[in-house]
Amino acid sequence: MTAPITAAILVIGDEILSGRTKDRNIGTIADYCTAVGIDLREVRIVPDEQDRIVAAVNALRTGHTYLFTTGGIGPTHDDITADSVAAAFGVSIDVDPRAKAMLLERHKPEDLNEARLRMARIPAGADLIANPVSKAPGFRLGNVFVMAGVPTIMQAMLDAIGPTLETGVRVVSHTIEAGNLPEGTYAGDLSELAKTHPGVSIGSYPSMTQTGFANRIVVRGKDAQALDAARVDVEALVRRLRDGATA
Amino acid sequence: MTAPITAAILVIGDEILSGRTKDRNIGTIADYCTAVGIDLREVRIVPDEQDRIVAAVNALRTGHTYLFTTGGIGPTHDDITADSVAAAFGVSIDVDPRAKAMLLERHKPEDLNEARLRMARIPAGADLIANPVSKAPGFRLGNVFVMAGVPTIMQAMLDAIGPTLETGVRVVSHTIEAGNLPEGTYAGDLSELAKTHPGVSIGSYPSMTQTGFANRIVVRGKDAQALDAARVDVEALVRRLRDGATA
Repeated sequence: MTAPITAAILVIGDEILSGRTKDRNIGTIADYCTAVGIDLREVRIVPDEQDRIVAAVNALRTGHTYLFTTGGIGPTHDDITADSVAAAFGVSIDVDPRAKAMLLERHKPEDLNEARLRMARIPAGADLIANPVSKAPGFRLGNVFVMAGVPTIMQAMLDAIGPTLETGVRVVSHTIEAGNLPEGTYAGDLSELAKTHPGVSIGSYPSMTQTGFANRIVVRGKDAQALDAARVDVEALVRRLRDGATA
Repeated sequence: MTAPITAAILVIGDEILSGRTKDRNIGTIADYCTAVGIDLREVRIVPDEQDRIVAAVNALRTGHTYLFTTGGIGPTHDDITADSVAAAFGVSIDVDPRAKAMLLERHKPEDLNEARLRMARIPAGADLIANPVSKAPGFRLGNVFVMAGVPTIMQAMLDAIGPTLETGVRVVSHTIEAGNLPEGTYAGDLSELAKTHPGVSIGSYPSMTQTGFANRIVVRGKDAQALDAARVDVEALVRRLRDGATA
């Protein structure tokens, strides 16, 4: 059995912590990871402060195969992600000729002012991540992928790096609708059932609708046969309790 | 000047990391903190694993006035937040008579099975947080508030604890619409301007629309007079560059 491919996400930005901007990138990256068999293990959101970014980058880039960051790579003074990542790795940072060339695809040379050139500041040793939307690139340094915060640009960068990522065995999931069958009614049996399917992760997810709870049981795993066996057992459990409930 | 009131959020749940569920609680709590002058400093999302929850609770409950957790307090075997928080504090946990009484408001005694009683397991020394939606309470232990993951229940619990929280000087923000004025056009001047308004936080937030960038500059601060001065300067900058751009 090969080691699992794991990942963490670091979202960088005061605007997320203030609530002004509602993050959408975490869900996008989480869906992507699940689709290609990468196990997302942790997410952190930190403010635009270099010491906080450096600490989080160094905490998350060790212990995970990949770290994806979003936010803070624009041209304004509050965009300090590239400098912070360079500091985390202890490498220098300067205007990168390849990145500058990308910016010149969008901007006339006379418009490439000091602020815009900030977007070409790339830590030494990094590979660039193309940005088909607005040209200013992201970059990869070691196992850290630095991407934009604007969701459309982040998505384009994720599409660009996707083929370069090592992927794992995909986790497949089945959802069994328990409807308004209360969690408390099936929790005991489900717990026992989970013990008999050790290779499968079984979770119960309540949600509220206008008419009450709408509960779902999700079985997740990498082994199709083990997963099917768990699904069949959960379906039988729900059916039995439903019939009992209406009896 | 009094010390700022700060907070962190810990979201607990495999379903968020797998992408199956898109978190909505972070944004809700962030908005709440901003509205009452609490400075949200960090967010983490971790899986349903006790050692990971314990480590995150202990990392985040120190250094912040408050820690808010969401998720993992239901009746099923994957709901391990209460036990994990007890372990983080090194206190015992058992069925709490007050919590059991709350559950009995919803469930008949004969329906209060072992699984449902899990929801009455509360760490020693904790105060309960009422749950008007489905009765199973959250709790407060020290500076840690443990709340449900279902957004409607989390919101109700947040409403319940709100009056008990120490609040700070509210951060007020003004948004200046820069429209399609490129960030790179104003970034240099904005950076200089920011230096002349040290008590005010000035951020630039690009977003994409069908027709291109729609940029916003946000000035944030606790001192109304300083904030107004910064707003006036940013508005003048945008006006000057717009006039220049159309000249």
